[in-house]
Amino acid sequence: SRPRDLGVRFGILPAGPGNAITDVPGVKVGQLTKIEGQDIRTGVTAILPHGGNIFQEKVPAAIFVGNGFGKLAGVTQVQELGNLESPIILTNTLSVAAGIEGVVRYSLAQPGNESVQSMNAVVGETNDGYLNDIRGMHISPEDVLMAIRSAKTGQVEEGNVGAGTGTVCFGWKGGIGTASRKLPESMGGHTVGLLVQTNFGGNLQIAGVPVGEKLGKYPFKDALEKSDGSCMIVVATDAPVLERNLERMAQRAMMGLAKTGGIASNGSGDYVIAFSTHEGLRIPHSIPSQRLQKAEFLGNDDMTALFMAVIEATEEAIINSLFAAESMVGKEDRKIESLPKTQVLDWILEKK
Amino acid sequence: SRPRDLGVRFGILPAGPGNAITDVPGVKVGQLTKIEGQDIRTGVTAILPHGGNIFQEKVPAAIFVGNGFGKLAGVTQVQELGNLESPIILTNTLSVAAGIEGVVRYSLAQPGNESVQSMNAVVGETNDGYLNDIRGMHISPEDVLMAIRSAKTGQVEEGNVGAGTGTVCFGWKGGIGTASRKLPESMGGHTVGLLVQTNFGGNLQIAGVPVGEKLGKYPFKDALEKSDGSCMIVVATDAPVLERNLERMAQRAMMGLAKTGGIASNGSGDYVIAFSTHEGLRIPHSIPSQRLQKAEFLGNDDMTALFMAVIEATEEAIINSLFAAESMVGKEDRKIESLPKTQVLDWILEKK
Amino acid sequence: SRPRDLGVRFGILPAGPGNAITDVPGVKVGQLTKIEGQDIRTGVTAILPHGGNIFQEKVPAAIFVGNGFGKLAGVTQVQELGNLESPIILTNTLSVAAGIEGVVRYSLAQPGNESVQSMNAVVGETNDGYLNDIRGMHISPEDVLMAIRSAKTGQVEEGNVGAGTGTVCFGWKGGIGTASRKLPESMGGHTVGLLVQTNFGGNLQIAGVPVGEKLGKYPFKDALEKSDGSCMIVVATDAPVLERNLERMAQRAMMGLAKTGGIASNGSGDYVIAFSTHEGLRIPHSIPSQRLQKAEFLGNDDMTALFMAVIEATEEAIINSLFAAESMVGKEDRKIESLPKTQVLDWILEKK
Amino acid sequence: SRPRDLGVRFGILPAGPGNAITDVPGVKVGQLTKIEGQDIRTGVTAILPHGGNIFQEKVPAAIFVGNGFGKLAGVTQVQELGNLESPIILTNTLSVAAGIEGVVRYSLAQPGNESVQSMNAVVGETNDGYLNDIRGMHISPEDVLMAIRSAKTGQVEEGNVGAGTGTVCFGWKGGIGTASRKLPESMGGHTVGLLVQTNFGGNLQIAGVPVGEKLGKYPFKDALEKSDGSCMIVVATDAPVLERNLERMAQRAMMGLAKTGGIASNGSGDYVIAFSTHEGLRIPHSIPSQRLQKAEFLGNDDMTALFMAVIEATEEAIINSLFAAESMVGKEDRKIESLPKTQVLDWILEKK
Repeated sequence: SRPRDLGVRFGILPAGPGNAITDVPGVKVGQLTKIEGQDIRTGVTAILPHGGNIFQEKVPAAIFVGNGFGKLAGVTQVQELGNLESPIILTNTLSVAAGIEGVVRYSLAQPGNESVQSMNAVVGETNDGYLNDIRGMHISPEDVLMAIRSAKTGQVEEGNVGAGTGTVCFGWKGGIGTASRKLPESMGGHTVGLLVQTNFGGNLQIAGVPVGEKLGKYPFKDALEKSDGSCMIVVATDAPVLERNLERMAQRAMMGLAKTGGIASNGSGDYVIAFSTHEGLRIPHSIPSQRLQKAEFLGNDDMTALFMAVIEATEEAIINSLFAAESMVGKEDRKIESLPKTQVLDWILEKK
Repeated sequence: SRPRDLGVRFGILPAGPGNAITDVPGVKVGQLTKIEGQDIRTGVTAILPHGGNIFQEKVPAAIFVGNGFGKLAGVTQVQELGNLESPIILTNTLSVAAGIEGVVRYSLAQPGNESVQSMNAVVGETNDGYLNDIRGMHISPEDVLMAIRSAKTGQVEEGNVGAGTGTVCFGWKGGIGTASRKLPESMGGHTVGLLVQTNFGGNLQIAGVPVGEKLGKYPFKDALEKSDGSCMIVVATDAPVLERNLERMAQRAMMGLAKTGGIASNGSGDYVIAFSTHEGLRIPHSIPSQRLQKAEFLGNDDMTALFMAVIEATEEAIINSLFAAESMVGKEDRKIESLPKTQVLDWILEKK
Repeated sequence: SRPRDLGVRFGILPAGPGNAITDVPGVKVGQLTKIEGQDIRTGVTAILPHGGNIFQEKVPAAIFVGNGFGKLAGVTQVQELGNLESPIILTNTLSVAAGIEGVVRYSLAQPGNESVQSMNAVVGETNDGYLNDIRGMHISPEDVLMAIRSAKTGQVEEGNVGAGTGTVCFGWKGGIGTASRKLPESMGGHTVGLLVQTNFGGNLQIAGVPVGEKLGKYPFKDALEKSDGSCMIVVATDAPVLERNLERMAQRAMMGLAKTGGIASNGSGDYVIAFSTHEGLRIPHSIPSQRLQKAEFLGNDDMTALFMAVIEATEEAIINSLFAAESMVGKEDRKIESLPKTQVLDWILEKK
Repeated sequence: SRPRDLGVRFGILPAGPGNAITDVPGVKVGQLTKIEGQDIRTGVTAILPHGGNIFQEKVPAAIFVGNGFGKLAGVTQVQELGNLESPIILTNTLSVAAGIEGVVRYSLAQPGNESVQSMNAVVGETNDGYLNDIRGMHISPEDVLMAIRSAKTGQVEEGNVGAGTGTVCFGWKGGIGTASRKLPESMGGHTVGLLVQTNFGGNLQIAGVPVGEKLGKYPFKDALEKSDGSCMIVVATDAPVLERNLERMAQRAMMGLAKTGGIASNGSGDYVIAFSTHEGLRIPHSIPSQRLQKAEFLGNDDMTALFMAVIEATEEAIINSLFAAESMVGKEDRKIESLPKTQVLDWILEKK
């Protein structure tokens, strides 16, 4: 079960019904897990902002770079134009090319895109090379297509799945995690959904408990570079928020990561991609010249509750990834243990 | 007369009726010129986006940093919140404090602002210390208030006036310049107005003619540092453009500066502040919580004509400042000559 | 006594001898506290990177904008040139002009600066208008000069002092706080010192304990806007770090703020200014043309320990400010209570 | 012959011996041109900062985004770490994935990189879809490898070659162009080399002559969107310049583009990648912990001449691409004419 089901709380805002990014209506997640032989432990996670043709109906979006030691593709166009026109793909570091090619092939083939000649693929990654034969580049564009096509609303699998198959987090087995927050109606009733691919280090803290120290597993214990890694974070919301304020929301996700003890170490590629699914804010690919966009959106003054929702859900999604992940043996017979969940839960719950 | 009146053209778009920033309806400019004794050659230029209470009715705005060797105050709040809540003040480098205090006092005293406790003053500067006793800090907050209060629509004085009183540009007397472009109705009919405070160097080129080389006055002729200085650029438009696209417009102003031969030298503080006066885009200071902002605005695809308007008007405004400025004697009996306009005009017109 | 003296620990790295920004050799802090009558509760805090002529011997520096709803002056020049040439001044929101004027007058008057005509003053602020008659603008340039001139090495006063005199943090009395970390020799032995001016909100957490929830004082309990405010953060280090990596260190301070429960609310002006005092990295104001700068500095791979030091010291400095601050009555007879320290300490220490 | 050989001058600084990016010692360029059947008109251009193992011996680097409507891969790592660890690849918009995969395969296979598990490929593009069957994705990773392996010092082919095979610029046939500047010894004697892939529009101006207007080919003549496109710009220098000042140099390239009449239209993906080949500034991939980097580099005050060199060489490289390109027939029997060079030269030379 997930920490929340066991009584652990992260912050003060209520979670959405599924405590998942898919609590944001329309958001779909598809995952392809590739565990083959002893050496292949990798995969793909695809996040779709809506079920339609994303290129033709773009969504407002922003990207915040927490620490840019990573290969995220598609950054500058999102920042310049303020929108997202493709599924978001997460995979391993050396498979970004496959991710882009998969997205391009998917998009070119979509009905309505017959004359499309340009496509900004947003493809992020973390490095699963400790457990996975990453140099083998085992993800193909077809794998990416399969992840995209399998995307669905509803429950999101967590842990050793998709792009989280081979990741390591705080020295324990990491993976995919998700969480959400649903603001009270008095604050607009909006939903914020998070999905993370956890592969980073630091000094693990769960719901305020210094788990890393208690377990004797934290940076400097062994060596500093063990804290390296990366975290990809995707933030979805149905709140009517334009790109500038989406960027501010994205920036807050790093504050949620900080609450888990993450330190954005030198070698970490930490990125946050945020988008709004609000239907009134869709940006059609083709608009007649001089046709004004009409929009209704939240002003700056209404952003604070959404910032808090992002912080809380990021913290919870990261911890969820650790609780869902199971121990794994991979490349060169290396083993990464899962977090000793019973022990950790005891600590957390006795503190309450 | 101004270059355009003499037959010089900068680009292909038509100028507005006054070829000035005040062609954008509602924009007001006020200037205070301080020429006293032998050593004081400085002033203040104030640009107001509209005639109302700017704090209560903010306008969408953006700032682009062409070269950040300058003291422009108020940058981060404009960038974070996407709006401007004060008059824009231009003055000399060591009088930014007076500029801020003047704006704050002005704003606190505005009817309706009785409970205001925070105010983001946007105050830019260039260094007029060659002709002006800048260390004397001769601009007072009262001077700034006077410039603001004298602001008016209609014709804008150019040359040795306001914040341009003591500036030097391409080795010649610089100053305040202004220009505008009015897009054809088929492109929306919007107006773009520019105002510049020119105090920079490079290899002067006017309407394509290498004037600097012909006159033997260009960098490296004497010494590189002669090319230092700064350029403050203010871009106003009545087009319905939100802050992200205003930032893109601002960025293009540096391309107009490039066409005059400017090189954004190391020591130059080159900044562009852009805002939209479109009434439908005003941001009230106080909105009920959860009240959505409603807006109609131009999409990315309609920006190119506005970009071109900014480039053309920047080039023309800079050259206008040179043509309007007269030779000046200042501090320590130093003299800066005005551009030899007749000679230069001959070169430009014979090229046509 | 300070939390550390009472047995509270923030992270795993050792503090420096004074647990203060002045553990970084050469750094000086000066404070002017202005408590007058019923309504004036404000002040100035000045941080000097070294005891010499800062303009003539600049230090590598960077600024990270955590949330730009603030009036920090001097940002773009630090970012463009990578250095700091003035004392850093902290004060209240409407006294930034006084701060700049004070710095300019101080710098112009320094021996050796007789011909200086340009000065980039870095002046930050938070809004103390709840307890202080901020509209009265009670800080003068002379006050700023006094703060600068009183700067000294050694112990730094915390709490209701200097720029922290009238601030409010998490609904309790905030103020000035400081802390430091000293890396083990195996990691270079460098020191990182922090100073904060705390005036922000969120969901207070101390050493992992959800103090805000336990005390019933957290956002949404009353109203969202109560969480507004700001935090100014100054990071000093003697490590040989150039400006790009100083910016990365600055960015991590926001992660330390997150660990206290800060959320960087919409109205918060959260900024981090970082500099290196390493003598080998000083940048002389005047260098012969083409003279190369020689430097020895840490590469990217050695930054992680410094990042962690920043995170830990930020968290501790903020909490220190809360423990040092005493209850205060100010403007309109408003009272802000100090944190109920005994109760809070009990909770923290029983958790251990 | 090239414009310079015919007497056309761009600015005042002397060109290097080959007037090419390869005037910077060690820089190599490799190009693969793919012209097949009626529909394939595309290719790859690879720029190598030095002839060794770039991953093991990284170079200081920076990227400036002129207009981010493009798919440049590798941006954030260059910006975060300040270095380049791969060849720079230019190709068409939908072949960025092939570019990345080619670079990754090249780098993994380099002797010494046997344990490398991460690689930041910098791959830029422009859209050649008017003449080329871009949806066919005809560039393979093997093509990219061939371009890299064919890289050599010395003369660089210009025009319809490599990544410039199918590009269109100002309505005329564009392509690859290159140029350089060699500073006088009194200014350090450094070389700046440029390479451009020209595929953009605007109001063409050559050496100050309004060629676009004279030829009746400029934006708004037909339609605004005709001015769309992109320009990739690579700046190399042997000057000892660190990443922050390399970014400033990169930013100036957009000012050179402006002098050709470019307007950075909405649809243009305009990027500048700058690096220093100075041997003393190489960054080894593996350094012992706490080993300081020693470097001697130019300070801010020595940058202006390098800025001017970038501006001048960008302008010349773009015009060189137009003069080298020949008329081309491609996809769907579309034809793009080459610039009417004789006519244009007459105009330019008679103006002198």
